[in-house]
Amino acid sequence: MKFIAEINVMPHKEILDPQGKAVTKSMVNLGLNEIQNVRIGKHITLEIESPDQESARAKVDEACRKLLANLIMESYDFTLRQA
Amino acid sequence: MKFIAEINVMPHKEILDPQGKAVTKSMVNLGLNEIQNVRIGKHITLEIESPDQESARAKVDEACRKLLANLIMESYDFTLRQA
Repeated sequence: MKFIAEINVMPHKEILDPQGKAVTKSMVNLGLNEIQNVRIGKHITLEIESPDQESARAKVDEACRKLLANLIMESYDFTLRQA
Repeated sequence: MKFIAEINVMPHKEILDPQGKAVTKSMVNLGLNEIQNVRIGKHITLEIESPDQESARAKVDEACRKLLANLIMESYDFTLRQA
């Protein structure tokens, strides 16, 4: 069975996000003063071939921990659906 | 009222995603051959102060079009919830 995973990798709340800070300031220049506290991370989609949802979930979790997220600075979550 | 927007900005399907391609290859090196077609975009969260949901939605849409997404190469979608 083929599954599609949608993964979000975000910087930890305690960690400064310079890219997000810069974008928050740019919002003011665009006249969008109402927008605050922009934080920028990664959105990753991938396909995974697996006999069942549980093993697919385990594989995606492994991919996040080993490659996609730096757990010192980032946290991740994901959703899984059948393709 | 304060709203929180969760925005995904992804490269168009027709556009080559070299970062995603590289990660797909790295999955094989990690023994995760079941994972394919990795695509990498941005996940952005922000807070917005607005009198109602409709005007908040309009402002977030404006921010996406003017600053967060490059519509030539990327598409975006977002969800909005009350903080």
